[in-house]
Amino acid sequence: MKVLSYLSRRSGKAATGVSFDGERVFSLEELGWPQGTDVLSFIRDLGCDFTRVQAPAAGGEALRDVELLAPIPHPANNVICIGLNYRDHVEESDRAGILEPAKAEAAYFTKHVNEAIRPGGAIDGHFDICDSLDYECELAVILGRDAYQVSREEAGDFIFGFSVANDVTARNIQKGRGQWFFGKSLDSFFPMGPWIVTRDELGAAPDLAIRSFVNGEPRQNSRTSCLIHSVAEIIEDLSRGITLRAGTIIATGTPSGVGMGFDPPRYLRSGDRVRCEIEGIGALENSVR
Amino acid sequence: MKVLSYLSRRSGKAATGVSFDGERVFSLEELGWPQGTDVLSFIRDLGCDFTRVQAPAAGGEALRDVELLAPIPHPANNVICIGLNYRDHVEESDRAGILEPAKAEAAYFTKHVNEAIRPGGAIDGHFDICDSLDYECELAVILGRDAYQVSREEAGDFIFGFSVANDVTARNIQKGRGQWFFGKSLDSFFPMGPWIVTRDELGAAPDLAIRSFVNGEPRQNSRTSCLIHSVAEIIEDLSRGITLRAGTIIATGTPSGVGMGFDPPRYLRSGDRVRCEIEGIGALENSVR
Repeated sequence: MKVLSYLSRRSGKAATGVSFDGERVFSLEELGWPQGTDVLSFIRDLGCDFTRVQAPAAGGEALRDVELLAPIPHPANNVICIGLNYRDHVEESDRAGILEPAKAEAAYFTKHVNEAIRPGGAIDGHFDICDSLDYECELAVILGRDAYQVSREEAGDFIFGFSVANDVTARNIQKGRGQWFFGKSLDSFFPMGPWIVTRDELGAAPDLAIRSFVNGEPRQNSRTSCLIHSVAEIIEDLSRGITLRAGTIIATGTPSGVGMGFDPPRYLRSGDRVRCEIEGIGALENSVR
Repeated sequence: MKVLSYLSRRSGKAATGVSFDGERVFSLEELGWPQGTDVLSFIRDLGCDFTRVQAPAAGGEALRDVELLAPIPHPANNVICIGLNYRDHVEESDRAGILEPAKAEAAYFTKHVNEAIRPGGAIDGHFDICDSLDYECELAVILGRDAYQVSREEAGDFIFGFSVANDVTARNIQKGRGQWFFGKSLDSFFPMGPWIVTRDELGAAPDLAIRSFVNGEPRQNSRTSCLIHSVAEIIEDLSRGITLRAGTIIATGTPSGVGMGFDPPRYLRSGDRVRCEIEGIGALENSVR
């Protein structure tokens, strides 16, 4: 199923809902959850027991009629990201000479996200302080149960589902500060969507085509099976010391083809449209303002 | 005034309260806020208008009778930290050769904090994955108003107050991953307290003695005026691109005298007691388990 946040055409209000067939969306209230249940409460309550969500015989509204929001508009904590997690991206990063070389062990950093940007929403280029705005199409994993000291074999049981994220980056700030947090965290730098597809549909370790386009031109093209550190290994690794709460978002890294990888670099400019898509999930398109 | 979270002896429940004289603590309910107002809601509601909080003529309970919790037990976002922000600590870090040399511009990273550890609470050494547990006594700044594109001259108006934090660190993980997030974010690695002292009492740029002790032995000893990047500069810098919400916690860096700075290093072991204190705020003592 698809779990989504949206503006209901019927009520005019923001809601969380589920689409079973990609045609109609049912609000959580229609599915029996208390009024006002937000997406994080829903994820925590469900605890990965997907069988508790059953498609009603009638009701709902047409998915094409609603305005999509980011599926988790207000993440509970910073989004956890892993750097340099596709081999070809490590190579392009080394060629660009902008970042330190990758280490053998996974490097994590976070993005400060007051509000995730919806599909179709604008990325603010912050061009007063950013001269090298870049895109990174990534598979985002959403946890459905609190995870502590979970082995890679068990890790799949803790995954709620997957979405598409754009780990927008100000390369000059990322490089200038050494630590990546600031260059990754400017307001609007986390578009996410169009929805979360749950694990029962995709499996715990999906091998999916992952692609991005700028103004229609192909830029990134890889598969999520090419991750250096797999989703299960990331969950095992981080949960050795950190309790990852249900609702945690992990952005799993980006393949080659980002702007910094071209010679000369091809950074984003005002008016550009960036499209990130992952097979079996969907497409996330945002313009730069 | 001191703003604190505590277990009330009278009610047996967790509460947020204020002490005006360091002798008695009044709950927010006694001060006229709605029942159940938590510390983050209080900070946001107050908006740095400290005159709205007036000491009642009677009531309250003795501060020495309550059990202190971390003043913000559950931070709304990751705690924002700045690395290498005292000159003498930069020098000891360079001597130790563990971290990359400091850059001219401030390097920020974050700590994932599910629950801040209370004064007296235990730091989990995570000795299964950490062979180099270290302490970092820091001045923590708490914002009282949403800050975006705030100049250093205006920055003081956005400060709610100050507290003491211990930026506990697994040096081997910090070094091994390049990005510092993971080595800084293990469960229990953020003791904070004993309370927040508000800006109207300390001023916006306080020059305070900052010290730490391990098992009673002096380790760090500096002044908060020795920050390379001042509190006002940090707020100006980050808010150029990030909207910092009221309630945001910024840990401003640590002076020399951490365990990694000794030759050989003097890391923390099970049973050690770490005391962090800042003049005009108070002392935060925690044991290692």
